[in-house]
Amino acid sequence: MSNSFGKIFKITTFGESHGKGIGVVIDGCPAGLTIDMDFVQSELDRRRPGQSAIVTQRKETDNVELLSGVWQGQSTGTPIALWIANQDAKSQDYSEFADKFRPSHADYTYFAKYGLRDYRGGGRSSARETASRVAGGAIAKLFLQQYNIKICAYTSQVGNIILEKNYKEIDISLIEQNPVRCPDVLVAQEMENLIREVRKDGDTIGGVITTFVQNVDVGLGEPVFDRLHAELGKAMLSLPACKGFEYGSGFAGVSMRGSQHNDIFYKNENNDIKTHSNHSGGIQGGISNGEDIYFRTAFKPVATIMQKQNTLNEQGEETTIQGKGRHDPCVVPRAVPMVEAMTALVLADFYLRKRNDKI
Amino acid sequence: MSNSFGKIFKITTFGESHGKGIGVVIDGCPAGLTIDMDFVQSELDRRRPGQSAIVTQRKETDNVELLSGVWQGQSTGTPIALWIANQDAKSQDYSEFADKFRPSHADYTYFAKYGLRDYRGGGRSSARETASRVAGGAIAKLFLQQYNIKICAYTSQVGNIILEKNYKEIDISLIEQNPVRCPDVLVAQEMENLIREVRKDGDTIGGVITTFVQNVDVGLGEPVFDRLHAELGKAMLSLPACKGFEYGSGFAGVSMRGSQHNDIFYKNENNDIKTHSNHSGGIQGGISNGEDIYFRTAFKPVATIMQKQNTLNEQGEETTIQGKGRHDPCVVPRAVPMVEAMTALVLADFYLRKRNDKI
Amino acid sequence: MSNSFGKIFKITTFGESHGKGIGVVIDGCPAGLTIDMDFVQSELDRRRPGQSAIVTQRKETDNVELLSGVWQGQSTGTPIALWIANQDAKSQDYSEFADKFRPSHADYTYFAKYGLRDYRGGGRSSARETASRVAGGAIAKLFLQQYNIKICAYTSQVGNIILEKNYKEIDISLIEQNPVRCPDVLVAQEMENLIREVRKDGDTIGGVITTFVQNVDVGLGEPVFDRLHAELGKAMLSLPACKGFEYGSGFAGVSMRGSQHNDIFYKNENNDIKTHSNHSGGIQGGISNGEDIYFRTAFKPVATIMQKQNTLNEQGEETTIQGKGRHDPCVVPRAVPMVEAMTALVLADFYLRKRNDKI
Amino acid sequence: MSNSFGKIFKITTFGESHGKGIGVVIDGCPAGLTIDMDFVQSELDRRRPGQSAIVTQRKETDNVELLSGVWQGQSTGTPIALWIANQDAKSQDYSEFADKFRPSHADYTYFAKYGLRDYRGGGRSSARETASRVAGGAIAKLFLQQYNIKICAYTSQVGNIILEKNYKEIDISLIEQNPVRCPDVLVAQEMENLIREVRKDGDTIGGVITTFVQNVDVGLGEPVFDRLHAELGKAMLSLPACKGFEYGSGFAGVSMRGSQHNDIFYKNENNDIKTHSNHSGGIQGGISNGEDIYFRTAFKPVATIMQKQNTLNEQGEETTIQGKGRHDPCVVPRAVPMVEAMTALVLADFYLRKRNDKI
Repeated sequence: MSNSFGKIFKITTFGESHGKGIGVVIDGCPAGLTIDMDFVQSELDRRRPGQSAIVTQRKETDNVELLSGVWQGQSTGTPIALWIANQDAKSQDYSEFADKFRPSHADYTYFAKYGLRDYRGGGRSSARETASRVAGGAIAKLFLQQYNIKICAYTSQVGNIILEKNYKEIDISLIEQNPVRCPDVLVAQEMENLIREVRKDGDTIGGVITTFVQNVDVGLGEPVFDRLHAELGKAMLSLPACKGFEYGSGFAGVSMRGSQHNDIFYKNENNDIKTHSNHSGGIQGGISNGEDIYFRTAFKPVATIMQKQNTLNEQGEETTIQGKGRHDPCVVPRAVPMVEAMTALVLADFYLRKRNDKI
Repeated sequence: MSNSFGKIFKITTFGESHGKGIGVVIDGCPAGLTIDMDFVQSELDRRRPGQSAIVTQRKETDNVELLSGVWQGQSTGTPIALWIANQDAKSQDYSEFADKFRPSHADYTYFAKYGLRDYRGGGRSSARETASRVAGGAIAKLFLQQYNIKICAYTSQVGNIILEKNYKEIDISLIEQNPVRCPDVLVAQEMENLIREVRKDGDTIGGVITTFVQNVDVGLGEPVFDRLHAELGKAMLSLPACKGFEYGSGFAGVSMRGSQHNDIFYKNENNDIKTHSNHSGGIQGGISNGEDIYFRTAFKPVATIMQKQNTLNEQGEETTIQGKGRHDPCVVPRAVPMVEAMTALVLADFYLRKRNDKI
Repeated sequence: MSNSFGKIFKITTFGESHGKGIGVVIDGCPAGLTIDMDFVQSELDRRRPGQSAIVTQRKETDNVELLSGVWQGQSTGTPIALWIANQDAKSQDYSEFADKFRPSHADYTYFAKYGLRDYRGGGRSSARETASRVAGGAIAKLFLQQYNIKICAYTSQVGNIILEKNYKEIDISLIEQNPVRCPDVLVAQEMENLIREVRKDGDTIGGVITTFVQNVDVGLGEPVFDRLHAELGKAMLSLPACKGFEYGSGFAGVSMRGSQHNDIFYKNENNDIKTHSNHSGGIQGGISNGEDIYFRTAFKPVATIMQKQNTLNEQGEETTIQGKGRHDPCVVPRAVPMVEAMTALVLADFYLRKRNDKI
Repeated sequence: MSNSFGKIFKITTFGESHGKGIGVVIDGCPAGLTIDMDFVQSELDRRRPGQSAIVTQRKETDNVELLSGVWQGQSTGTPIALWIANQDAKSQDYSEFADKFRPSHADYTYFAKYGLRDYRGGGRSSARETASRVAGGAIAKLFLQQYNIKICAYTSQVGNIILEKNYKEIDISLIEQNPVRCPDVLVAQEMENLIREVRKDGDTIGGVITTFVQNVDVGLGEPVFDRLHAELGKAMLSLPACKGFEYGSGFAGVSMRGSQHNDIFYKNENNDIKTHSNHSGGIQGGISNGEDIYFRTAFKPVATIMQKQNTLNEQGEETTIQGKGRHDPCVVPRAVPMVEAMTALVLADFYLRKRNDKI
């Protein structure tokens, strides 16, 4: 199994939902970076359970502890290990589900693949693993600060409630003002209402996150397999519940003609080469061209519902299962910081890889 | 730069559009596989230029030559190198474009990244590179034959012409019966007409490819970063002109409720564990569950058009550019074998990785 | 920086000598392995400071804590994280050495490379890092038990005191009977005396460790770059203070003629293919042939001595430095379990890689 | 199987001794490097068969062909593929050996590992594979020219004939003046005589190569697993017939005391930090310190001898075997450029990795 992501700026995550805790080792962070642990904690706070009324009420403060790699406030070039102890791990009894396969969960595939599984809260396949990514992504964000990169993600759809504005029209200061992380007061309220309603039914709902990145240097990404958007796509699709990724014109672009879709170059007042339109989503031939990068990611409805469902157990016998308590009715609000973290990890890695483009 | 794909079953591609040729090294193919070079050639024939009236008329027979790794018809476990000499490389004069940036091509980003570029036909960023992938993918397909895997891709949309059937309703024997590779005679004809019309305008158009894979073992893919769909997504997004990827319910799934979306387990007549629905697209928790895998990939309109466009040259001066001759008006028909090849490479790699799941 | 070792059975180590502790993530251990934490602890006990009168008296119990990857006593296929908290970290004042470069240490090269360094006890470059390796190696040993592999290392030279027997002549039960880990009572006593004498002078001394591995399957190792002995060599040379590696006939073999050196094949009573002699050290063409693997590793005298030495500080000014207290006068006795651990890690990795040799 | 070496500056080799030819893909060479193919050819000429009376008389001109990655004489950042067609491949009949295991060759281990093997001339396990490395190493040397690095290897021992001078005392201009590549006219003559005598007996003999590297920057190598000397050691031990590696004081250093062995720092007239002695061999804590790097590598006698030997065939039956014709009586003279090539590859990789040490 591989639990690592990145080539130069690389993270390895470990830990289970209901074990002692979860952690991440960031290997490849250059020396001399000021490590602001308050910032790392604040990123985790954006992801943590219990942050609002519409997310899981699991009690986890997700306090991050620095284990290694920092000396007098600065990265030393050695591996930075971060640890988040589980706090709410023992309070819930999963034994009823011990040998049942929750529908559309990883229970069955894990069991078939490995021959055994830690059934408590999904074990390693729990979305709790993403706290490690958010912590690692926070270090990547700190690294990217020197390049003045701005990464911004927000909820643009929940169920059929769609934010019709594109990313250039939104007021990003509104994102963190509401629990769904949608930068429009009215649409956010509709989304929140839908999530509450769905939860009341013991059900769940999906959504879409839109992300954009500004002030990106020209030249990130590689031309063949490791195209910038291919790595971003993999990063996003590796998040729990993610079902789709499109960048720039995306699926809608297939109906356009080349003469409409092509982004015409021009020189701006600073003599920088820019494009009039940006159907390319800031990436041409797999390499950033300095325009805004933007992409959308689809998240399915959470598989754990509070309704009774038919299923099988490990012996292959028919049985029923019903979710309990503290699960997210919609993954999207908490997935926003995860998407940002994975974006930051991809970009940090490519900033380092870019250093070897020329002799 | 990295030009390799895969962890165990790994390919490395090399070569440029207008250099001596292009090649691929397949490292990690187990010993004892019968290497049918006629099959490899037949896969390349499905991708090659000039195969029909609606693709580029560039004259390349794409004859593949086996350089190493096979002894008495079988793989030896050593690297299999394949070589495809360029034949039509010198017949066209690219000098007019030598210092101009073709809009929405990799010209500018390459130049900015590396400080120089082989401008002839896009050099390394040419779609010609995908012939190496198709050759490598053909070896992967041969490897997968022992598992009885069936990979099938086809054109499901060109511009606004959409094949409304889902993959279970199609007659796959029709796919290779028409130049657009759409398994519906009437829709295929409409697509072909659109492509001809677009080409007459000196323009290009995008499209969508749908892929499904049958008879997949349970247990392919890894639970965290290297989820099966994440690797498939990266593989697809690394293809030229690919702008989006979705699997299973994809973007449409976001509007569903968990109670609708969950795939309920049951046991079939052979005592195999199956699911009634398959919104999961055959993948749960990043791991194949034995149901059909299916996904869709979006391809933008080709950037090279036969109309005059404004652009800049390497000196940053304004100029115009106009494509010449032999380019694809729509990438999708020839992308079908590319999509299959990348799918095969991902699956072959995971079949090998799976051998180490258990002690 | 890379802090990982292995391709499939892979460890990543982190932590500093005087930070909170040190750890290791073992990623790629197959599921279903019984994890005996008492065994892991016992291996650490063989490496720990203070174990005898002739090693450093630093007070570290090196208690290992299991953080993840094990469920009901068995590996789950997910990353196994182990943590060893530092206990004696704060008791010593390193501030005097804060800006001085200890001769033949990593102080200067670290500082030059990274621009800063954690000077406390060598930080990441401390031999304390090897506890992580011993912990990871213990998991590898548990994995190898199913193959009945026997790895044995011992001290064969300290300074000029040489154990003249070859590995076949020794009584391995004697190795752990004396503090130098030499399987000969008299020679061990001489070695111990030399170490005591050297320490009394405030000085240090080097030595040699001989290792042999029995019951190895045929077919471990790969034929080109990743030859079994090349990976073993890298593994050993990555240990602190290791200056040389030779396997089989080694440096002495250069004076032999091919007709003497060649190992002639025969079939034994079980119809197994064996060789009469074993100058190959159990490895031919980079691949194990089923004979005993054996090799020797040279360790230099520890750089920290209790005598006053001239040196420079970070400002490049001349100064003097004198080691204090609790350092090993000879690294070899405690390096024995490190050598075994690295050997186990290499073999476990190749056992997994071997699963993909054939279709 | 892995046929790649290096992390950033990475080569992948392919091809067999008696197939169509052998090749190498260099992936990761930065753009903008002037590629002097005459230099690449001259390096291959130093390795090629038939270059003198004391090496194999196989007729191979080893003409290198550039397949990709260079445009107008400069590297483009894309993979550089080089190809060396086999010329003498079909002239010899290996069928007599087809099912016999040559003693101390890779024949048996290959067959056991892969279940089949290309027996012609050793197939992939042939030393012919090293021509790919020398070609790749030549590109690495071109890359290192910008840093003014000087890599020099020479024969310091053949059988019992030992060059007693250390590397600082030799006249490097003499190395290429004699067929054994020993920088001492008289000792070279003795070595040559020994090789001729050994060959007359139908036998072979081993030897030692000494290598030194000058003008190395401070900071190459990484502190834990990828220590500079560990990668050099792996690189050397991956060469055919290499049995041992030691750097700096090496095995002799074990008898020294720390007070003798430590290299005391001082500042030279240019205010550079240097050491008075250099027992460290230019590497401290795994990282270059700017002093000369030097190391020794042991090569066993070639396994193919012209005398009749007992052996087994693939059926496990007893038989005899006798080498024919054109083999090296001593591998060392031709191994000198191989050692230099592998050294260059390791250093080029670390020069690129070093770019990411600091933010």
